[in-house]
Amino acid sequence: MTRQQLIQLLKDMPLQEKVNQMLQVAGNFYMDDTVITGPMKENGFTEENISQAGSVLGALGASKIKEIQKNYIEKHPHKIPLLFMLDIINGFRTIFPIPLGQGATFEPELSEKLAAAAAKEAAVSGLHVTFAPMVDLVRDARWGRVMESTGEDTYLNSLFSEAMVKGFQGDDLKAPYKIAACVKHFAGYGAPTAGRDYNTVELSEHTLREFYLPSYKAGIDAGAALVMTSFNTINGVPATGNKWLMRHILREEMGFDGVLISDWAAIEEIIYHGYCEDRKEAAVRAAEAGVDIDMMTGIYSEHLTALIEEGILDEALIDEAVLRILELKNKLGLFENPYKDADEAKEKEIILCEEHKTLAREAARKSFVLLKNETVLPLKKGQHIAFIGPYTDNRNMSGSWSFIGKAEDTLTLREAALKCPETAEATFHPGCPLLGNDIHLEGFTEQTEEPVSPVQQQKMLTDAIEAAKKADLVIMPLGEHYVQSGEATSNANIQIPQIQQTLFNKIYEVNQNIAVILFSGRPLDIRELSHKAKAILQVWMPGTEGAHAIMDILTGIFAPSGKLPMSFPYSVGQVPVHYNEYATGRPYTGADKDRFRSKYLDIPNAPLYPFGYGLGYTTFSLSPIELDKSAMTKTETIQASITIKNEGSLPGTEVIQLYIHDRAATVVRPVKELKHFRKIHLQPGESQKVTFHITDRDLRFLTEHDRLESEPGTFDLYIGTDSTTTNQTQFTLIP
Amino acid sequence: MTRQQLIQLLKDMPLQEKVNQMLQVAGNFYMDDTVITGPMKENGFTEENISQAGSVLGALGASKIKEIQKNYIEKHPHKIPLLFMLDIINGFRTIFPIPLGQGATFEPELSEKLAAAAAKEAAVSGLHVTFAPMVDLVRDARWGRVMESTGEDTYLNSLFSEAMVKGFQGDDLKAPYKIAACVKHFAGYGAPTAGRDYNTVELSEHTLREFYLPSYKAGIDAGAALVMTSFNTINGVPATGNKWLMRHILREEMGFDGVLISDWAAIEEIIYHGYCEDRKEAAVRAAEAGVDIDMMTGIYSEHLTALIEEGILDEALIDEAVLRILELKNKLGLFENPYKDADEAKEKEIILCEEHKTLAREAARKSFVLLKNETVLPLKKGQHIAFIGPYTDNRNMSGSWSFIGKAEDTLTLREAALKCPETAEATFHPGCPLLGNDIHLEGFTEQTEEPVSPVQQQKMLTDAIEAAKKADLVIMPLGEHYVQSGEATSNANIQIPQIQQTLFNKIYEVNQNIAVILFSGRPLDIRELSHKAKAILQVWMPGTEGAHAIMDILTGIFAPSGKLPMSFPYSVGQVPVHYNEYATGRPYTGADKDRFRSKYLDIPNAPLYPFGYGLGYTTFSLSPIELDKSAMTKTETIQASITIKNEGSLPGTEVIQLYIHDRAATVVRPVKELKHFRKIHLQPGESQKVTFHITDRDLRFLTEHDRLESEPGTFDLYIGTDSTTTNQTQFTLIP
Repeated sequence: MTRQQLIQLLKDMPLQEKVNQMLQVAGNFYMDDTVITGPMKENGFTEENISQAGSVLGALGASKIKEIQKNYIEKHPHKIPLLFMLDIINGFRTIFPIPLGQGATFEPELSEKLAAAAAKEAAVSGLHVTFAPMVDLVRDARWGRVMESTGEDTYLNSLFSEAMVKGFQGDDLKAPYKIAACVKHFAGYGAPTAGRDYNTVELSEHTLREFYLPSYKAGIDAGAALVMTSFNTINGVPATGNKWLMRHILREEMGFDGVLISDWAAIEEIIYHGYCEDRKEAAVRAAEAGVDIDMMTGIYSEHLTALIEEGILDEALIDEAVLRILELKNKLGLFENPYKDADEAKEKEIILCEEHKTLAREAARKSFVLLKNETVLPLKKGQHIAFIGPYTDNRNMSGSWSFIGKAEDTLTLREAALKCPETAEATFHPGCPLLGNDIHLEGFTEQTEEPVSPVQQQKMLTDAIEAAKKADLVIMPLGEHYVQSGEATSNANIQIPQIQQTLFNKIYEVNQNIAVILFSGRPLDIRELSHKAKAILQVWMPGTEGAHAIMDILTGIFAPSGKLPMSFPYSVGQVPVHYNEYATGRPYTGADKDRFRSKYLDIPNAPLYPFGYGLGYTTFSLSPIELDKSAMTKTETIQASITIKNEGSLPGTEVIQLYIHDRAATVVRPVKELKHFRKIHLQPGESQKVTFHITDRDLRFLTEHDRLESEPGTFDLYIGTDSTTTNQTQFTLIP
Repeated sequence: MTRQQLIQLLKDMPLQEKVNQMLQVAGNFYMDDTVITGPMKENGFTEENISQAGSVLGALGASKIKEIQKNYIEKHPHKIPLLFMLDIINGFRTIFPIPLGQGATFEPELSEKLAAAAAKEAAVSGLHVTFAPMVDLVRDARWGRVMESTGEDTYLNSLFSEAMVKGFQGDDLKAPYKIAACVKHFAGYGAPTAGRDYNTVELSEHTLREFYLPSYKAGIDAGAALVMTSFNTINGVPATGNKWLMRHILREEMGFDGVLISDWAAIEEIIYHGYCEDRKEAAVRAAEAGVDIDMMTGIYSEHLTALIEEGILDEALIDEAVLRILELKNKLGLFENPYKDADEAKEKEIILCEEHKTLAREAARKSFVLLKNETVLPLKKGQHIAFIGPYTDNRNMSGSWSFIGKAEDTLTLREAALKCPETAEATFHPGCPLLGNDIHLEGFTEQTEEPVSPVQQQKMLTDAIEAAKKADLVIMPLGEHYVQSGEATSNANIQIPQIQQTLFNKIYEVNQNIAVILFSGRPLDIRELSHKAKAILQVWMPGTEGAHAIMDILTGIFAPSGKLPMSFPYSVGQVPVHYNEYATGRPYTGADKDRFRSKYLDIPNAPLYPFGYGLGYTTFSLSPIELDKSAMTKTETIQASITIKNEGSLPGTEVIQLYIHDRAATVVRPVKELKHFRKIHLQPGESQKVTFHITDRDLRFLTEHDRLESEPGTFDLYIGTDSTTTNQTQFTLIP
């Protein structure tokens, strides 16, 4: 349709029909089996609301969606098709590593491919929109939803945001296998106070703009068709009713002209925040803020018509919102083809196809971060190996927000290990249940493990200890239960379950040659493991091909290359901790013994493992930095080069990282900021010169005048292999 | 002098002489023994700077100060006297409870008396200005300097701020025994990220204004002569160079026209923040922000004159600052009497006088908070009692910022107990050293304890266990070392030292009848003590008369009446935690089992002990709330009454607390806000009706229009004995 036709269609629609376009309901209003998230309340939808609702979430499957769409359009007064939406985060049915793991690849172009593959599986299943990517910056490992983020770095997050949007959407939403992306959660949702999900967000406007907003902006600039509101307040006003945030920042400053959708029931929740007296006022606030779609509450459909008839709201607000929704449907080509890519035959062909599994395996092994390795990895042939730990024979390694994926699609580590020569003779022992009695997953339906009696537990432990005694090397697959990270899974204690820590210590008593495979959705406090284990491989929640990917690393088929996208805190008492902090006036260097320094009495300031950190199976040397000149104007470029050499005996991959520090500025600058990085593969003995181009763009920040610009002065420039690099030089920006 | 004379004096001063007035140096430039705080740098003062410096910190003693003043004035070209300043926090030589303990009294009028007594001791010792009160709001127990605050509540802090300023200053600074107060640290210093002292402060402007600024404002409105800048950044700009904060908020909005002094070397530290290239730029930034006195750096004295001569700064800036300094000297009457109250005879008479000791004892016992008591307190006669713990015979209980106080002035608990009939026959055992090897107090000079050998430690433990076996009741005085809280003492772990926890558990194995006396400068995670001990009395750092005061409570001479001014977190993974949080959109009530709620999987949302909580030796009943009307206009008053009755068999004191909750507002309101409280003393069986007057003033907040005003609607009103009270009613504010 042309825009003119859309406007005419809008004009033809009665007010309540327009309002109904702004309603999104769950697929279970049209069919039976579905996925429900969030607190489900009395919705109060009328049958007419449902039969004219503009979009649906949670329905899937080509045949079902086609049927719903067909029935719906037939009854609809203007034959406007439904939009079908779903959370498609790290894959659809073929599950890729969780986003935090994808962040560890430092390879946004790979995530673009993953998003495209997920979109393809989703599209043939009838879907039009995914509620992804989540691009919230995260600094607090207590917050379970760090799992869905790509980490603590603004620049890295922005690259992933852009890549994922491009992967889902391509250049044309009408094209086959493309779905619309929804950047979320606008804004600042990743900074809940005390790491408690949905809690108040306290951010200065400067930090919000400097660190948090750019990744949303990157997704919007990449063409994201939708943006989702966040649950939290910003400056005391819930985002979903926050006119300043949505009208001024999102629409005017960022130029977003797509569809703004509330998070699940978020319009209703602004009442619980204490922002509105009742549902009617909530409707006013959300509509005025410019929220186009009301996800899963009856507030818009109940109240907007009356509010306009009473003269409280202007009908232009509704027209604007509905036109955006109609435009999205039009961009997807739904007026011409309401089923888009929904195709039962293609579902069989594409879902879980070999190409996607290969991609899943590649992504998983690139996401793993080798935190420690005292020469036990890769595995040597002829060793007697025991696998001990609850992830030894467990299929649930896809993370808590991968509900279309099925455990049955996933090999266990034992099954994968049995296929490898190095571990074909290994023995396998769970050692203990994944969770002890200290963890209460109230309200979770995913807890499918059978309870284990104390007698059985004792037997598991005894069996494991005996196996450890006989082994040359113990591989311990430990970690969080896959539902311990994700939405509404805040933890005050960020260690592995106590029962597993106990198992580790018991095994350590009889065999100190331990390599830990660590599954988690968040950075954990692993001081004790880190101190005692010979090796630690962080594998996040690796997805469908996780077990194969782990064995690829263990056996050395693929060298580890992941880098931490989020600091691993020393302890929970250190959070929030992140590499790109502001300098204090009393920095602690450890060099002097001055008492009055910014430090703790009982722990270091530095995290246990820093941002950008990760080992491989070889060692690299880096030359000092060479600059082609030591000063530049705003229109010039400085070339910064280093030479990297593989000094070891195995091939390897390194992520060369370039950081900038503006020594003095009208607003305090971070001690380091990632500005460029490059992934380099080198054979033993091979070396390569790597050159980065520094331009004015890399030096810009929000100055005291709130303008994004650079300021002349001296800059430190670091090039190294993690954020603690001291390989440094400096240059000057001249006016 | 008249203002006209001061202006004439200013006109007569050459530029560099004026600049020198803005310099503050340490007393050791004029004499030998002194107190030095903060990172000491190369100062680069000239002899002329020193001989014309406007003020001195760290000198004390009537005779020394008189001598310094005399010599100084003789040489000064305009015979302008020096100002003598010092940190006088919780007492001068007679040490009162730390400010956090004073907060627990819920009796600001008592703190006014304490401040007046401290001022009297300081004044006769020659001092003119104290760097107090510190009125920073605090929510994070990791920050050691919570010790110097009166807690987490804006209203309570404001009352204490006002009371302390009045106590120090009285109505007329010229009057005998009055010194000038300095409200600090402006602004937001109490919210360092991750509880690490001097770290970046992240606050939305709304929260800064709503929660943090009012206590400074209260002190300023009470007439505080000085304000001190804070070390932290606000919105990315260090406070000490923050024009928006100092010119717009402090001067224009708050109307402060007194002296703004930097914190120790803070003007230099804006360079380390990365805000200025060099000292010259730091001078410009601080002067433009309106900082009148440069504490302990040579930046102003080195650069201001040249900056004016070069036309970079306007001399009017200097004149404005110097006039404020001269006015302060004039308000203190120093032009007429440069020695003010300095008097060696009065020093002997007043310092540590009985009146002050009595006040110290009263304040201490009112500051103690009884957290738990399963009928072991007050002590029964005829019991065999063992005191076990490192505070059994320790004089260091005055907190880390009470350096004029002397340990020798303080009785130990053993010494005080021996004077009481109930404990005259008790036995006394340290049990273990105060600190184990896990705590490193780098740079501390106060660690005077002798190291204890492992053999001695074992003997101490054995002795204590044997004593515990024989006792009917074990009293365990445990807690933090007095230097573990205070400036630059951030802790990631907020439990008592491990060595003491071990002692407690060993004693608990042989005798479970334990009453803990807990010394600390901050809320601690005391889950284990709380679970096991029969009684816990929180005594903070109680000061000179602490031991007597503790015995007064233990023996029942004085009933405990303190209330927590800061939440005791459940664990460090819960911080920051405070009662007056904003509601979320998904509040967790525990009533439903909904997974998607704002909560932790592993700990409760509630702190272990909440704000406003504290037990006595009797029980009180509270009637439901009666209102004289259920609706009011902005000009009306509602009277809210309850009747409180002492239902027990001992006299008692209760702090009746009134909280408000605005159900819906244009900016989200806290779930509860303390608005009124009253301390009530009742004999057994006695009852009393308590009436509070609710006016529009209690309902005001910063609305979406940034105006301090109320909004019509429904308000919840609670009256109870702590912040978790459910004794509730509601009323309406009508337009």
